[in-house]
Amino acid sequence: MNYRAPLRDMRFVLHEVFDGVAHCRRLGNGLDGETIDGILEQGARFASEVVAPLNRQGDEQGCRLEQGRVLTPEGFAQAYRQYVEQGWAAMTGPLEYEGQGLPQLVSASFHEMLMGASLSFRIYSGLTESAVLALHRHGSEALKRDYLGKLVSGEWTGTMCLTEPQAGTDLALLRTRAQPEADGSYRISGSKIFISGGDQDLSENIVHLVLARLPEAPVGVRGISLFLVPKFEPGADGGVGRRNAVECGALEHKMGIRGAATCVMNFDGARGWLVGEANQGLACMFTMMNDARFQVGLQGLGIAEAAFQGALAYARERLQSRSLAGPVAPGRAADPIISHPDVRRMLLTQKTLVEGCRLLAACVARELDLEHGDPDPQARAAAGRRAALLIPIVKAFLTDVGQEVSSLAVQVHGGHGYIREWGMEQLMRDSRITQLYEGTNGIQALDLIRRKVLADGGEQVRQLIRELLDEVAACSDPALDEMARVVGQRLEQWRSLSQHVLDVCRADPQEIGAVSVDFLAYSGYVLLAALWLRAAVCAAAALDRGTDDRAFYQAKLQAAEFYWRRLLPRAGAHREALLGGAPCLMVMSEEHFAF
Amino acid sequence: MNYRAPLRDMRFVLHEVFDGVAHCRRLGNGLDGETIDGILEQGARFASEVVAPLNRQGDEQGCRLEQGRVLTPEGFAQAYRQYVEQGWAAMTGPLEYEGQGLPQLVSASFHEMLMGASLSFRIYSGLTESAVLALHRHGSEALKRDYLGKLVSGEWTGTMCLTEPQAGTDLALLRTRAQPEADGSYRISGSKIFISGGDQDLSENIVHLVLARLPEAPVGVRGISLFLVPKFEPGADGGVGRRNAVECGALEHKMGIRGAATCVMNFDGARGWLVGEANQGLACMFTMMNDARFQVGLQGLGIAEAAFQGALAYARERLQSRSLAGPVAPGRAADPIISHPDVRRMLLTQKTLVEGCRLLAACVARELDLEHGDPDPQARAAAGRRAALLIPIVKAFLTDVGQEVSSLAVQVHGGHGYIREWGMEQLMRDSRITQLYEGTNGIQALDLIRRKVLADGGEQVRQLIRELLDEVAACSDPALDEMARVVGQRLEQWRSLSQHVLDVCRADPQEIGAVSVDFLAYSGYVLLAALWLRAAVCAAAALDRGTDDRAFYQAKLQAAEFYWRRLLPRAGAHREALLGGAPCLMVMSEEHFAF
Repeated sequence: MNYRAPLRDMRFVLHEVFDGVAHCRRLGNGLDGETIDGILEQGARFASEVVAPLNRQGDEQGCRLEQGRVLTPEGFAQAYRQYVEQGWAAMTGPLEYEGQGLPQLVSASFHEMLMGASLSFRIYSGLTESAVLALHRHGSEALKRDYLGKLVSGEWTGTMCLTEPQAGTDLALLRTRAQPEADGSYRISGSKIFISGGDQDLSENIVHLVLARLPEAPVGVRGISLFLVPKFEPGADGGVGRRNAVECGALEHKMGIRGAATCVMNFDGARGWLVGEANQGLACMFTMMNDARFQVGLQGLGIAEAAFQGALAYARERLQSRSLAGPVAPGRAADPIISHPDVRRMLLTQKTLVEGCRLLAACVARELDLEHGDPDPQARAAAGRRAALLIPIVKAFLTDVGQEVSSLAVQVHGGHGYIREWGMEQLMRDSRITQLYEGTNGIQALDLIRRKVLADGGEQVRQLIRELLDEVAACSDPALDEMARVVGQRLEQWRSLSQHVLDVCRADPQEIGAVSVDFLAYSGYVLLAALWLRAAVCAAAALDRGTDDRAFYQAKLQAAEFYWRRLLPRAGAHREALLGGAPCLMVMSEEHFAF
Repeated sequence: MNYRAPLRDMRFVLHEVFDGVAHCRRLGNGLDGETIDGILEQGARFASEVVAPLNRQGDEQGCRLEQGRVLTPEGFAQAYRQYVEQGWAAMTGPLEYEGQGLPQLVSASFHEMLMGASLSFRIYSGLTESAVLALHRHGSEALKRDYLGKLVSGEWTGTMCLTEPQAGTDLALLRTRAQPEADGSYRISGSKIFISGGDQDLSENIVHLVLARLPEAPVGVRGISLFLVPKFEPGADGGVGRRNAVECGALEHKMGIRGAATCVMNFDGARGWLVGEANQGLACMFTMMNDARFQVGLQGLGIAEAAFQGALAYARERLQSRSLAGPVAPGRAADPIISHPDVRRMLLTQKTLVEGCRLLAACVARELDLEHGDPDPQARAAAGRRAALLIPIVKAFLTDVGQEVSSLAVQVHGGHGYIREWGMEQLMRDSRITQLYEGTNGIQALDLIRRKVLADGGEQVRQLIRELLDEVAACSDPALDEMARVVGQRLEQWRSLSQHVLDVCRADPQEIGAVSVDFLAYSGYVLLAALWLRAAVCAAAALDRGTDDRAFYQAKLQAAEFYWRRLLPRAGAHREALLGGAPCLMVMSEEHFAF
């Protein structure tokens, strides 16, 4: 299938809803609108012309492990070279290491495109950006000097080595060991699984960030340290030197993202260096968790956009049956299926979820930028708190949307959706990983309740709701009255539901896990409704101004109405399920789930 | 993964909820409880020992097309031979052709097991049963004599050749032609796609039932006739004779059911014989549609059960993190994840959907049996109407459940769920087809509204609701009071929602497609609630009687409570979405879905 970047909608979100230029000014990087649009246009070309054509064959060929080396699918290495040479890898890297330091509000659009074009291809570079962040914040000067430049440019890539067979969600159980050496380095020994890009043939070196235990380290998560373990030690000339004792032992056979190498990595006394303080590894990892989880949310969004495009193109071309209200294409054998209300229901579900999630992603990107770049320290702290609240929602909600929207794309295609040639089933398979990695969506929901709602007594969520309610109150367009009323009611309900959640979770800790997933989903649907209202206000204003682009803004208003009438009701079901409480989950004894 | 037939629950449904022995007595086939249980126990052994071990390698190997012949995965042919030799193929076949004529209320349990063990393997024999039905009801005596015995025994298999590239849902568009010959046969020419078992190496002959047009046939669906086209014409000795001009041109590459051969079939002037009247092909097909759609519903159920089993076993073994209420396995490294409320939420969602759908399937199986076998013609007609109403619900709802439950199984496994070795992702891929074939679930929903609700002015649905309300009113157990009240409210709401649907669809035909999918889902959730109440009443009665099997019945009551508290609320969201109406679907012009 073809991928075409949704530039018009991206510009709407970036400029009209979130005033990206003012945002850039505030961050002090002086990007103007034309430059931003230029970057996105070039990015769109790269995504559709260079990356998208790799996606299907990447799935068909998968990766191979030959004599200890991983070979990526045909074309990946060449495309990655272009990616580095054209500077795409350095987009968000720090300026002092030759990165371009673009704000996330801008880069998120480019990354969404990459993910829509090929999630497998994007995974290699995405993890490098996470490694850059960790190293930049926690690495010693020597490590930064030796590694950061190459990682920022993308010549070298990074990985995150956390999971072990017995330690997934629960990192307290990890067993990889680090033995100090006399020269200040460490010998790392152990086995890690699910390591994306653990080995590959794209970059000349691979820098692993590895969680391991020092001798005598406290048990549990307070005894975990972070180490940098390169595939090749840096040579004296800045290139690659001695090969290290780390190797890919096997490739996983997966449902999807088959173009991305998912490796078992064996560390056999490999040389590594401590990143950050001893026993503070988890904290070091956490500082980049927000960004990594945000990126996974974008993966859901990118795939959802691609799936919507596939479904829409098919629905406009495929002729099948007559419209219920009489032929719309009487000269043809049958009507295009986009004439049928149920097909429209599927397409509009896709469209309004995708565009709503794009608004949410932009909203979070903005907070992440301000958290790190606002000149005012108080504003930085406030943005950090807001981002922390929204990150689990954006990760889980957008990836759930990715799965739903790609499944709808299969459904719109009927039996053809099940056939590999059409590409829709691949999107479903590829997107399924995003609900699992970087913390399953269930773990996101627990994070939301425990660390973001209970931890501050609900202050952050109340403040967000308050601001959104103010926005609703300020909406004076009579044409948006009904929508504003419905959104306002849901926001009020969100406020009282949050209080309920606080109350029950304080009374019974099992309620934390009993309310979590439904509370997150509820929050996501209501947030999207508030953002759709914001978008509708912008669209109505543009129409009032007498825009040349009436069709675009009218479609926005129509989409907003579809969202609140036909999708927002889902929030109610999540609320009611949540109110069902924990006892009906906990009462059954383990042995009685099946007989 | 292992598959273990859920015999205890099947016996509960069959004997305790639906009184299978009385049912068999009514049908005049005199099966007693012991015989039924014996059949199911042997069937369970066949499914887990012979069929289940084929499932994973069937997926890995897929089918191959070599020199015009399709080769199924290793072991399929041998297992199929056992299937025929042990008489499993003949289970539902008519007695006069050496079938065993078992009622669906019994056979459905065995078929569910087969589908849970391997959907790919089951597809070959399932279609043969449909062909038997069509031929038995519409074939000439000569065709029945030549083909039925071999098809009933399973020595020969059948296919359904409907779809063409341009004609999927809309069979009016089909182009395959039938040219009459002097000897009363026809020459069939055309190409069919998505033909399951179109060719294979399991059976010595394959009997295709093919929709085609006669010369001068009226345009549209009233010009379609049904033909029997054998791969080999029957020889004089009853074995296979001359090879016919029908061939597999290609195999489809699919998301799942890779062990089932999905063929492009080319008919190149192949010899065929008319089945039923000329131009009545669609009506002939429709008479077996109920059974075929019921079988697809069972596929969703079978896979869902297998997925639940996989998730439950993993959740009991996997140790990860401590329970929110303090360690439950203090001597081990962490607690089994079944201690965590959110994992329990997923498992109980699976369990109560699976067991609820098993009740619904039994309910429909019973009506199908009565439709064909009740001694009283009026009762036959009434059962036929009830079955017709429920068939689209059972097809769509059970297959949606199959997808949801298998996706939850992936989620319970975390990252491991994405890895092929664990088998969960295969269940997700395999089950996805069931929402598409035999009429997409969107088409089921249209069928429900148009042919089953609008066509009789809502009489059937009202009568069903009335009977279920009577059942609620008769529920006198105080422990079930709250559940009965909630279920009763939903049934009343279903009644008024049906009336609303009738009103809006009469006023605006677009509403038919605008309400359809949500109305079907709403109906499914409420039906399941009523059936869960029925099961709870049975369980409570057993406990009152002082059963030896208390744990089983207590778990039923606990599951019933989970269902109405935490899943039934979904009905409300479907209702509210439906009330959103058609205009917000229809207002956007086709060109404005994307910019």
